[in-house]
Amino acid sequence: MKIVIIGAVAGGASAAARARRLSEDAEIILLERGPEPSFANCGLPYYVGGKIQSRDKLLVAPAERLRQRYRLDVRTLSEVTQINRDEKTVTVRDLQTGKTYDESYDKLIYATGAAAFKPPIPGIDGERIMSLRDLPDADRLLAQVVMKSDSSQPPRRCVVVGAGFIGIEVVENMIERGIETTLVELSDQILPPWDREMIEPFHSLLSDRGVKLHLSDSAVRFEDDGTELTVHLKSGAVLHADFAVVSIGVRPENTLALEAGLLCGDRGGVVTNEHMQTSDSNIYAVGDVAEVRCSITGDTTQIPLAGPANRQGRIAADHLFGRDSKYRGTQGTAIVGVFGRAAAMTGLSEKVLQRMRRAYEKVYVHPADHAGYYPGATAMSLKLLFDPENGKILGAQAVGTNGVDKRIDVIAMAIQAEMTVYDLEEAELCYAPQFGSAKDPVNMAGFVAAGVLRGDQPVVHAADVLDVATAIPADESVFLLDVRTPSEFSAGHVDGAANYPLEQLREHLHELPRDREIFVYCKVGQRGYMATRLLAQKGFNVKNLSGGYTTYRHVEIPRPVLQ
Amino acid sequence: MKIVIIGAVAGGASAAARARRLSEDAEIILLERGPEPSFANCGLPYYVGGKIQSRDKLLVAPAERLRQRYRLDVRTLSEVTQINRDEKTVTVRDLQTGKTYDESYDKLIYATGAAAFKPPIPGIDGERIMSLRDLPDADRLLAQVVMKSDSSQPPRRCVVVGAGFIGIEVVENMIERGIETTLVELSDQILPPWDREMIEPFHSLLSDRGVKLHLSDSAVRFEDDGTELTVHLKSGAVLHADFAVVSIGVRPENTLALEAGLLCGDRGGVVTNEHMQTSDSNIYAVGDVAEVRCSITGDTTQIPLAGPANRQGRIAADHLFGRDSKYRGTQGTAIVGVFGRAAAMTGLSEKVLQRMRRAYEKVYVHPADHAGYYPGATAMSLKLLFDPENGKILGAQAVGTNGVDKRIDVIAMAIQAEMTVYDLEEAELCYAPQFGSAKDPVNMAGFVAAGVLRGDQPVVHAADVLDVATAIPADESVFLLDVRTPSEFSAGHVDGAANYPLEQLREHLHELPRDREIFVYCKVGQRGYMATRLLAQKGFNVKNLSGGYTTYRHVEIPRPVLQ
Repeated sequence: MKIVIIGAVAGGASAAARARRLSEDAEIILLERGPEPSFANCGLPYYVGGKIQSRDKLLVAPAERLRQRYRLDVRTLSEVTQINRDEKTVTVRDLQTGKTYDESYDKLIYATGAAAFKPPIPGIDGERIMSLRDLPDADRLLAQVVMKSDSSQPPRRCVVVGAGFIGIEVVENMIERGIETTLVELSDQILPPWDREMIEPFHSLLSDRGVKLHLSDSAVRFEDDGTELTVHLKSGAVLHADFAVVSIGVRPENTLALEAGLLCGDRGGVVTNEHMQTSDSNIYAVGDVAEVRCSITGDTTQIPLAGPANRQGRIAADHLFGRDSKYRGTQGTAIVGVFGRAAAMTGLSEKVLQRMRRAYEKVYVHPADHAGYYPGATAMSLKLLFDPENGKILGAQAVGTNGVDKRIDVIAMAIQAEMTVYDLEEAELCYAPQFGSAKDPVNMAGFVAAGVLRGDQPVVHAADVLDVATAIPADESVFLLDVRTPSEFSAGHVDGAANYPLEQLREHLHELPRDREIFVYCKVGQRGYMATRLLAQKGFNVKNLSGGYTTYRHVEIPRPVLQ
Repeated sequence: MKIVIIGAVAGGASAAARARRLSEDAEIILLERGPEPSFANCGLPYYVGGKIQSRDKLLVAPAERLRQRYRLDVRTLSEVTQINRDEKTVTVRDLQTGKTYDESYDKLIYATGAAAFKPPIPGIDGERIMSLRDLPDADRLLAQVVMKSDSSQPPRRCVVVGAGFIGIEVVENMIERGIETTLVELSDQILPPWDREMIEPFHSLLSDRGVKLHLSDSAVRFEDDGTELTVHLKSGAVLHADFAVVSIGVRPENTLALEAGLLCGDRGGVVTNEHMQTSDSNIYAVGDVAEVRCSITGDTTQIPLAGPANRQGRIAADHLFGRDSKYRGTQGTAIVGVFGRAAAMTGLSEKVLQRMRRAYEKVYVHPADHAGYYPGATAMSLKLLFDPENGKILGAQAVGTNGVDKRIDVIAMAIQAEMTVYDLEEAELCYAPQFGSAKDPVNMAGFVAAGVLRGDQPVVHAADVLDVATAIPADESVFLLDVRTPSEFSAGHVDGAANYPLEQLREHLHELPRDREIFVYCKVGQRGYMATRLLAQKGFNVKNLSGGYTTYRHVEIPRPVLQ
């Protein structure tokens, strides 16, 4: 068996190692266009930022080790220029010698990854415009970053275009390097995979750290006058910088596949079956270049993440040796950290559910990451999306300082197992005061969601409360009830709300309207829940604001958009 | 409906709050023998150690709040002396006035918890012998700890008897207070719920921090001469101390239940059905006093932990208002932290599986908690126990510095969902380099376990390798093969092993015996796996040491037992 693999990062390298473990006798050729195989793609921003100091650390499986340990025929600086399906060969150009040769294969694994998308904006090919997808990119960007860094010079200025994973990580690392950083994002929020109200706290986090945010805007022209870069935005704003990093998404590197007539999807990903086989059964596609299925909806999607890439590589290698391994699809688990905080998600977001027109319900909780009485507890926000009929978990998002990854991983497992919110109620998780709570945030989300489904706790959402609060003329059909303490109330409340602290509510029932719907809220939803139970039993028509005033503020607050 | 609840900590307080949410009109009386309801039991060691500085922080739901917010009739310092089932009353003694009265109930919730077990050892009732179950205990212990703490005095000395959760947490907090601490444990390991080889690193961790360990030993006599305490051990050792803390387990506080003729189990726990009803359908038992079922085996058990207690309280309240809530049983998820490290577990341990004579297989992995190229990665050890036929996960244990709780929580969820090791392979978890790895420790454990079940990787375990290494006469049927580097080998290896680094193994195949079984090992099992694949394909009879030399050393190393 002769296996040729195009691309030696996550998916390709995993496939190669797996293939060797399955067959000591196979001939395995690993073709990598870049100078190094299997580099730590996800570490690049931190290498540029100086957190990872040694470039060698990024070379997680150096060519020499792949050769010795796995007896792979590793060829770096080797670019495949053509796939010749009829001959079952690939045409390879040796980038050092310029020589071209054909290499035959029995099975081909196509793992070329995805390239930074560069829209056709005037000036985008200038030398001050960077991207960050591979080691040479990182070397180039690092050179810009450390240039003129003596204190006699003004700090360098950078414009980052695109606020996805890489954009946000670049922003953090630029700030760590003392570079004045402006972030431009087309969407009205950073990190578009998350729902906006969940990511809202990150906008002020970035602003607090000195990042200038331009949301709902985009770069339309780059000009380099030899001294500095000028970035013109669609809004008319003009930014001046020493360099820019464009990270507005990636596109599958599918040129070879298209030219070879392999079926590709709408987003450009190579279409694969559950074994990662393309429309040519002798060719597999894995990693960022492959189109995969969402394990929840069954829809095709592109998920450029390392974990799925590794699994797909493994499955392709399994299958070409006759094993029945199948890829289960991708459920969209992801995390990003910035300035000591993290945002994580798994499954479907609310915006995707809305786009799909799929029925869902949602709840918000804002628990501490561990027992409040133990030092160092920090708050997190957790949003749970679920089926309104059977409680099946559809997605979750969490934002906070600590323990955010843990809760999303637990819920990711629950989604994989097709569990319901009732299962989250019963989840038996680690508890000691420094690690969690006897009622873990995952349990709390389960309690609240199950309470909604059981009818114990009818909920209303922040957008609905905002509608009432801002209605002109005033919406007399709804009574807004704040059950927090007077001092909490005076520090900020929903316009038009009346304040009856939970502790005194029972004595004031006669003052509440029986002919109007009551929307009750507290800080996070817990006192509101008790008030809802109390009022419902007393015959009032009441709903609790899920996530309380905390979630409300993330919906209400205007986002900082600077000029 | 009139509900009386005996005991106002985790289970009782949860039941009371839930009952109020379900019924605004119910009369709910919460009887607590101690001075405070709903204190943070799990915080007591850290209050004594000074990490939690304010005693008020431990009062997580003060009586006044319970009264105001939940309209509960909270009566502290109120001890129930008798349950009168025929009359459906309890007899209550007011500990302040000494007065006794009867209180009627429609439904009774019995949540008295568990008391520190005090074996009948001479001197155990002395005033220098402490336990740590409630706030008065903590106050007493704290007084001992801070006594004579000026620098002119020699440091105080403490003997802790029993190395379970509380014992270990007390030890840590004594050391934090600068107290010379000796730990005595009947078992041959601390933290007996864990398997010994997993907890082995904690023995040296404790020794390194100055704790004197006496394993496989027990206290047989305490003597107080008015100046100091002398603790005589079964081994003959004699310890001198200022005070001792006895934490050798807890016993259900079942006196009232036994006297009232409620059915109790072998371990003393009150027998309950899935609704937490006792043998008297008007009486529920929840928390540490209740016997529950192991959700994996179905066997009855006692699990004195806060999470299950809270859930049971909730379920009892649900059921007495006519809801069909059921307790699913307890799966034994637990965690303990000491000196910055953590040990966590869920499901069945190997020792329990052996006791049950249930078939199982196991694997060990020793991955980093996050990507090795990102600063701050720390090693963890993860053990996975699973069904050798269908791969169903039976239990897991993890020990390390960071991220141990996360991996056990993920596997706890998998156990709840009755998932298999194949599901762990496919788990899609959060990955960014500061939070995890593209192949998470959970995936790694799944890969290895599934590889064993698929026959890709026959494994051998450390105890078997130790048998070979120490056999007299030498066991010629097995060839021990170390595939690490020469420098790793020279730093320590299995007696009798030959060293052929993986990278050079292919050139030396002719030197390996074809007539002997080969046990191959590396540092953690990964290179050993590759070597196993290689050799098996070349016709050798080979097995890989699961967990490699790292696990081997935890089995091999004699535990420090000081006199």
